[in-house]
Amino acid sequence: MQTIKAATYPIHFQQKGYQELEKLLSEKKYSTLFILVDENTKEHCYPRFLAKLNTLLSIKIIEIESGEIHKNLKTCVSVWNSITDFGGDRKSLLITLGGGVITDLGGFVASCFKRGIDFINIPTTLLSMVDASVGGKTGVDLGVLKNQIGLFANPQMVIIDDVYLDTLAARELTSGMAEIIKHGLIYDTKLFNQVKEFKKQYINNLIYRSIEIKNEVVLQDPKEKSLRKILNYGHTLGHAIESFYLESDEKENLTHGEAISIGMICESYISNKLLNFSTNKVTEIKETILSIFPKITLQESDFLAILDLLKHDKKNLSGNVNFVLLYDFEDYKIDCKVSQELIIESLIYYNS
Amino acid sequence: MQTIKAATYPIHFQQKGYQELEKLLSEKKYSTLFILVDENTKEHCYPRFLAKLNTLLSIKIIEIESGEIHKNLKTCVSVWNSITDFGGDRKSLLITLGGGVITDLGGFVASCFKRGIDFINIPTTLLSMVDASVGGKTGVDLGVLKNQIGLFANPQMVIIDDVYLDTLAARELTSGMAEIIKHGLIYDTKLFNQVKEFKKQYINNLIYRSIEIKNEVVLQDPKEKSLRKILNYGHTLGHAIESFYLESDEKENLTHGEAISIGMICESYISNKLLNFSTNKVTEIKETILSIFPKITLQESDFLAILDLLKHDKKNLSGNVNFVLLYDFEDYKIDCKVSQELIIESLIYYNS
Repeated sequence: MQTIKAATYPIHFQQKGYQELEKLLSEKKYSTLFILVDENTKEHCYPRFLAKLNTLLSIKIIEIESGEIHKNLKTCVSVWNSITDFGGDRKSLLITLGGGVITDLGGFVASCFKRGIDFINIPTTLLSMVDASVGGKTGVDLGVLKNQIGLFANPQMVIIDDVYLDTLAARELTSGMAEIIKHGLIYDTKLFNQVKEFKKQYINNLIYRSIEIKNEVVLQDPKEKSLRKILNYGHTLGHAIESFYLESDEKENLTHGEAISIGMICESYISNKLLNFSTNKVTEIKETILSIFPKITLQESDFLAILDLLKHDKKNLSGNVNFVLLYDFEDYKIDCKVSQELIIESLIYYNS
Repeated sequence: MQTIKAATYPIHFQQKGYQELEKLLSEKKYSTLFILVDENTKEHCYPRFLAKLNTLLSIKIIEIESGEIHKNLKTCVSVWNSITDFGGDRKSLLITLGGGVITDLGGFVASCFKRGIDFINIPTTLLSMVDASVGGKTGVDLGVLKNQIGLFANPQMVIIDDVYLDTLAARELTSGMAEIIKHGLIYDTKLFNQVKEFKKQYINNLIYRSIEIKNEVVLQDPKEKSLRKILNYGHTLGHAIESFYLESDEKENLTHGEAISIGMICESYISNKLLNFSTNKVTEIKETILSIFPKITLQESDFLAILDLLKHDKKNLSGNVNFVLLYDFEDYKIDCKVSQELIIESLIYYNS
């Protein structure tokens, strides 16, 4: 598969990635190679990666605990301390090997260590392949607020290799489908239709097209002044729902994809009410998503807490909540204001 | 005094600064204005600043504890939480009002909050005026390692107003003289001579010339690949000494200027041994510095601990300690390797 040229770096696919990595390692004369993993990617992905890596550089593994709950500054400090203890300097390279938590946190850690060292992302989950591989967003959560602390910073390269997908639990694999569906809805109906007829052997095509779309959008608007906001479709409400479940002690956490898929159903409903988005298409979205994702039942008693979390979304200015809504497939409106009543109505629609 | 044009922003002096600030506030349509202070600048500088500020914007003061010991991620988290609690969004502006701890930490905090909000620096100490106002270095310490975590990030503007110097204790005022001496030694002998004949009413000239010099250097080499390293004259050893005193429970902390002034004396001695820098000039530097700074007596039993801290300096690659040394005034050599024995000899020379 052809390399995709992102803003300042290439996204390489399969075997070519490792060849290009080897080339970069010899050109850049790094002093030490740090690999950031969690307990899962250390066990399942790192051996596969190491088998393909050909270098004489000193390699140090840094392991953090998996899960969104560890995507915080405390974990950053432990990684910074590890790099320091291993003698990391400005010519060190950090390779992130994992899902979105590892790539987001790792990019942030690298960008702030001694005012910035190089990093390379090797996303190992479907979600991080189609989402975190483009866009330069790095960061960690502050309390329950997702990605409240972070930076725009680009890696030296990204390597996408579907061999790592074999290591994923089914629920994690499914999680990534939400972003692919989103890219389809806002930008490419053909992609959305392919998701509906999804067969596993075609996963690489879905990944490739999804990355292409996100890259096209981000290149036009890297700092999210306008167009890039369409990538937040399903995320305004989805993030709040995800935070709510993360914050709750009693409820099991949702995957990012599960939360976003609820957000997309609700926001298609809101689109129908505010922008006359077709009722049939709302149904089509709901049915497609519920054929892939499990149905969660949202408690009505939780709605107000979810609304409260909405207000802290990074994209909201001066307390206004901004939604991306659909006129039609591939036709959107950004910065839409939505009343609390209609948001609640949409949550009830999801439950119905 | 004429505005100095730094990389991406202006450095305004005296009254003009407040006029330009007012202009910026009305152009940029910020949502909230956060002012970062410590207990000292809140009491002594903030009223003076407020008297000159003309805005209808909502102003929120965020106070942190003064001192290098609080220049850490824990303090950042408290500031990020405060901004969050006050409803800060991407259109918020952070104004730092204080010394190097406030400007360095504030710039870092702003650059990482929701992936970056605007900030303006108003340095209130002599040191931060001549040092932190140019160069885009932001950051905090990691344990005893100074500025280990940080970024290159530029403010929207810097305002220099000597009215804030009246609020400083004598020791803090003196601290800033070390950087002015350094700029003189590496770049402008005339400035060094002016320091020797220093009269307080000329302080603005010393500040202005010092900023000009640093700006000229940084513009040529923003990311410290070569020329900018000359700004580390006196700092390689000075930082280690500063860290050592900070780390020690028994010893009183040194000011940055006190530590750097020791570093400059030692490194002039090393320059004499390795680059034939004139013995008379070594004496001239020592006498000038000791006419301004108090003589500290370094314990020989502490030398090894200081050498150990040297190894963690950000500028050191693969465990090598790199010094900037002098052939002559205004004539330097970067990336010099120095033996441990000679470093110890130079510390003994300082003590003598």
